[in-house]
Amino acid sequence: MHPAQWIAAWVLLLHVWIESIGLWILEAVPVGGNISLDPFLFSIDTWNSYSRALHGSGRTLLPIETNLVDQVWGDQRPPPASSEIYSLPEEFTGSSWQEKVAGIRQQMEQHIRRPTAVLLSGLEETAWLFNLRGDDIPYNPVFYSYTLMTNTSISLFVDEQRLSAAARESLQAGCPGLLCVELQEYGQARAHLRQYVQGNVTVWLGTEYTTYGLYSVIPQEKLLEDSYSPVMLAKAVKNAKEQELLRAAHVRDAVAVIQYLLWLEKVVPQGQVDEFSAAEHINALRRAQGHNRGLSFQTISASGLNAALAHYSPSNESSRKLSVDEMYLSDTGGQYLDGTTDITRTVHWGVPTPLQKEAYTRVLMGNIDLSRLVFPPNTAGRVVESFARRALWDVGLNYGHGTGHGIGNFLSVHEWPVGFQSNNVPLAAGMFTSIEPGYYRDGEFGIRIEDIALVVEAQTKYQSGEKPFLTFEVVSLVPYDRNLIDLSLLSPEQIRYLNAYYETIRARVGPELQRQQLEEAYRWLQRNTEPFPLGSAATAATATLALRRQQLEEAYRWLQRNTEPFPLGSAATAATATLGVLALASLVSALLSGLQA
Amino acid sequence: MHPAQWIAAWVLLLHVWIESIGLWILEAVPVGGNISLDPFLFSIDTWNSYSRALHGSGRTLLPIETNLVDQVWGDQRPPPASSEIYSLPEEFTGSSWQEKVAGIRQQMEQHIRRPTAVLLSGLEETAWLFNLRGDDIPYNPVFYSYTLMTNTSISLFVDEQRLSAAARESLQAGCPGLLCVELQEYGQARAHLRQYVQGNVTVWLGTEYTTYGLYSVIPQEKLLEDSYSPVMLAKAVKNAKEQELLRAAHVRDAVAVIQYLLWLEKVVPQGQVDEFSAAEHINALRRAQGHNRGLSFQTISASGLNAALAHYSPSNESSRKLSVDEMYLSDTGGQYLDGTTDITRTVHWGVPTPLQKEAYTRVLMGNIDLSRLVFPPNTAGRVVESFARRALWDVGLNYGHGTGHGIGNFLSVHEWPVGFQSNNVPLAAGMFTSIEPGYYRDGEFGIRIEDIALVVEAQTKYQSGEKPFLTFEVVSLVPYDRNLIDLSLLSPEQIRYLNAYYETIRARVGPELQRQQLEEAYRWLQRNTEPFPLGSAATAATATLALRRQQLEEAYRWLQRNTEPFPLGSAATAATATLGVLALASLVSALLSGLQA
Repeated sequence: MHPAQWIAAWVLLLHVWIESIGLWILEAVPVGGNISLDPFLFSIDTWNSYSRALHGSGRTLLPIETNLVDQVWGDQRPPPASSEIYSLPEEFTGSSWQEKVAGIRQQMEQHIRRPTAVLLSGLEETAWLFNLRGDDIPYNPVFYSYTLMTNTSISLFVDEQRLSAAARESLQAGCPGLLCVELQEYGQARAHLRQYVQGNVTVWLGTEYTTYGLYSVIPQEKLLEDSYSPVMLAKAVKNAKEQELLRAAHVRDAVAVIQYLLWLEKVVPQGQVDEFSAAEHINALRRAQGHNRGLSFQTISASGLNAALAHYSPSNESSRKLSVDEMYLSDTGGQYLDGTTDITRTVHWGVPTPLQKEAYTRVLMGNIDLSRLVFPPNTAGRVVESFARRALWDVGLNYGHGTGHGIGNFLSVHEWPVGFQSNNVPLAAGMFTSIEPGYYRDGEFGIRIEDIALVVEAQTKYQSGEKPFLTFEVVSLVPYDRNLIDLSLLSPEQIRYLNAYYETIRARVGPELQRQQLEEAYRWLQRNTEPFPLGSAATAATATLALRRQQLEEAYRWLQRNTEPFPLGSAATAATATLGVLALASLVSALLSGLQA
Repeated sequence: MHPAQWIAAWVLLLHVWIESIGLWILEAVPVGGNISLDPFLFSIDTWNSYSRALHGSGRTLLPIETNLVDQVWGDQRPPPASSEIYSLPEEFTGSSWQEKVAGIRQQMEQHIRRPTAVLLSGLEETAWLFNLRGDDIPYNPVFYSYTLMTNTSISLFVDEQRLSAAARESLQAGCPGLLCVELQEYGQARAHLRQYVQGNVTVWLGTEYTTYGLYSVIPQEKLLEDSYSPVMLAKAVKNAKEQELLRAAHVRDAVAVIQYLLWLEKVVPQGQVDEFSAAEHINALRRAQGHNRGLSFQTISASGLNAALAHYSPSNESSRKLSVDEMYLSDTGGQYLDGTTDITRTVHWGVPTPLQKEAYTRVLMGNIDLSRLVFPPNTAGRVVESFARRALWDVGLNYGHGTGHGIGNFLSVHEWPVGFQSNNVPLAAGMFTSIEPGYYRDGEFGIRIEDIALVVEAQTKYQSGEKPFLTFEVVSLVPYDRNLIDLSLLSPEQIRYLNAYYETIRARVGPELQRQQLEEAYRWLQRNTEPFPLGSAATAATATLALRRQQLEEAYRWLQRNTEPFPLGSAATAATATLGVLALASLVSALLSGLQA
């Protein structure tokens, strides 16, 4: 049967919620059936999770190496990517590729299993290691490649023709020698690996993302399996220079978003802007910023009920008009030579409903509570992400997605293995992650507040253990919508945090707005980062105030009793009145000292 | 070589902290070595975790079925347990064993893999299923047994001689038939299982605790593996009657602990009590309570620096004197026919240091924050346990143990699979767990505050999803040490929670104290459950009050300026003074309404 005949029977399960694909296969495939997967499209861990689910069930998982979709393409298949692969200028890299290779080789030597090679099949692993970039994947400046780095050689599997002259020179400057990159054909990676593992070798790889196809050519006893390769882990912890680069990219990115929010405030009331044209506007603003190299993902621009759809993106054909009567959510990001950005702001230009305001405020409280959390080193994101949910949980609300993901330096906007999911690695100083709680009401509205934060060392009153505790420094620098914040729900600590954050925004984005001569945006920023009065933090303080009020009320009743107007024209009266005033003065004084205690 | 010769080379690794036993083996055993384990002493999951760590390393894990320690015992080995195995009276069971069996068989029928049998190797699985108890394991009323429950038969592997007449009658009342329990020799479990799996069967078992030895006789394709058997999971969710039983046991248990704390207050200043005699006293108080069947674990009674040692228990020889100059930690629990208890209180009868007081208060804040948490159904304990740590984390402190464990109805004090560890199941209404944050300072002191809490449905302002959100109801009913609480660290919400909890203690334990004619203990309870003033919650309210104070100070200065004493004897004066008083009155009134806002 020609593979094309299969197509009619295909069902695309894009919009079905499946708890476990393994269990789904159990239900869909009768006992005795085979399930075939292209082993080059599934990671080791994914493959094994299906395999475990089918274990002993009479269904068999089989690798099928002739990809049927490839056959169906025939000669209609688009040509492989051919654009240039280039070296990042030194000013945009944290260290040279030679330094990175030396660091990984040191880890190989120090490992008890003494691996002889590291296999890199994550595209961003190779891009990061060699400080190279391409544009094979939309929004991600990577290129198709594999790397096999042994203790004595480095093989980069890539279409050699595509390397810029500078890139080729950089890679081969150390040839021959330990720091010489041998360029090999992309298609030869598997054959080369099969050859390599004939010897007395041990190959170190990451099971979360290495394909089962590559993995299966390595004999079991020659494998050193970790969830993530040492390259993936080294990339996750940004050094001081990489941190500075990412911070700088976020300042310029904030300028674009601030310009956008100001523009929306002006044009939305005129009813002339829809989700699609709005997206085009923020995209253009971002592209105009220095070092920009496009977007980091397809802009999410969602008004009203559309914001309740996960990953909604407007098209020119079906685009909802923005209105002062609806909430609007924009989740956007840019690629810059110095960093990748990702920020979500939700706004309302009219009068939000009480539920919208409460939900927004609670999402913000979650964002704040996680951002200001102090936690021990080596804490998994998974065990702290609930702090971003608690303010919602308190009133029976929640959101159905993760709380954040790692992000790269001019690399992927979702960068493994940092984040708050169960398969993320513990948080360490130097890691960047998004913090993005939300709330979604089907058919009505959606809220998400997302910032990028850097894990930093915390200043704590005491110190336990050898390493300092950690906390976050938020590097996204755009204020939240004041129109949607119910201050009375916030604790004084949350308000104080917010005011400190706004001071940082002013200090870092203000000068950049002025440098770019964006005076109107500068004034908008000043308006929108005015400190919030601490006295509005009603929730936490109400109880105490109620007590104070009771004391004052008693004093007031005393005052009323003791200061009945006196009849004029009596000499004694004046003295009495004066005494009354003195008594009052001491009462207020006493109240004051009571409040001081 | 005679096995006894091996003993000299044995090293007991009790006090060594090993992050991963698998990695430790890698370091301790050279390539080419074999590691032998008694497969009946290791669970499937533990065995597999070692196996994974050794995978491809050139070291081999081998089952060794002749246990060398057994051989060394020779004829010195203590005889097997022979005490009576008895049926729990109906008033102390949640449902009949026939109902429990029917429920499990229903789950077998509804499972997509259609298991034909459930294998129970956890001692508390069999005890719970058949409402039987014994005393083979100190502190745990269980007995050596296995159960193989198929869709048509029930085999209980146990020493038949030990069953009480009533127990035997209960088990065999339905014979022959689907609800007939066939009694088989304990030692025949493996052989019977091996025989059973010859057929066209599927055996359902829990990999967290079933031994590798039993597991290995079942062909892979006849296995249905889950972390926990359906019996373990059914046992974890207490029904309404079981909940009431456990609540009732905790009321009587609180009486014993309150008597104990009162006694300590009186005798410790006289310098005549040490850790060991104190332990004997609480043990005696507990045994005197109704339905008591001894302790649920060895009493931890630790003064001063001893409390910083995990699982410290005093002996008659080495027992530290209790003193008003030291903190004292007691972690104690009882077995009652209606429930198992476990409670930790830490006290100080003199003047605690500022650090002791702050640390105690923060441990208490953690206990409160987790206890009052509202969370969605199906939430894993692992992702919320950080709420018990945050108040400590805030100042750089932490504790190095888990936050809680399940507990049984007259069964194990540490009952799987409920709790806050990564291998615990999601929290569900009806589960009981301990909540026990702590703080330990080596060589100085130790703090732990432990309560048992029931997972209950929460009342929330909104409802999302089909099932209500959850929260905890604390069923341990003993107040905390007021001498160690720094109220100014607590938020008004925490104080309000504490006051509500104390009201519950009064309402539930007060009458029982009176019923037992323990008047002094009753008065102690009243004193120690006085509501805390909300106005002391300085931390949260300070910020707001600072602002109010500023307003009042301004008003005071105005008052000073405008109420300079007038010279007597002037007619106009009286009127002015009266006006001043009126102005003051309206000022205070304005302040009041300001406070109201």
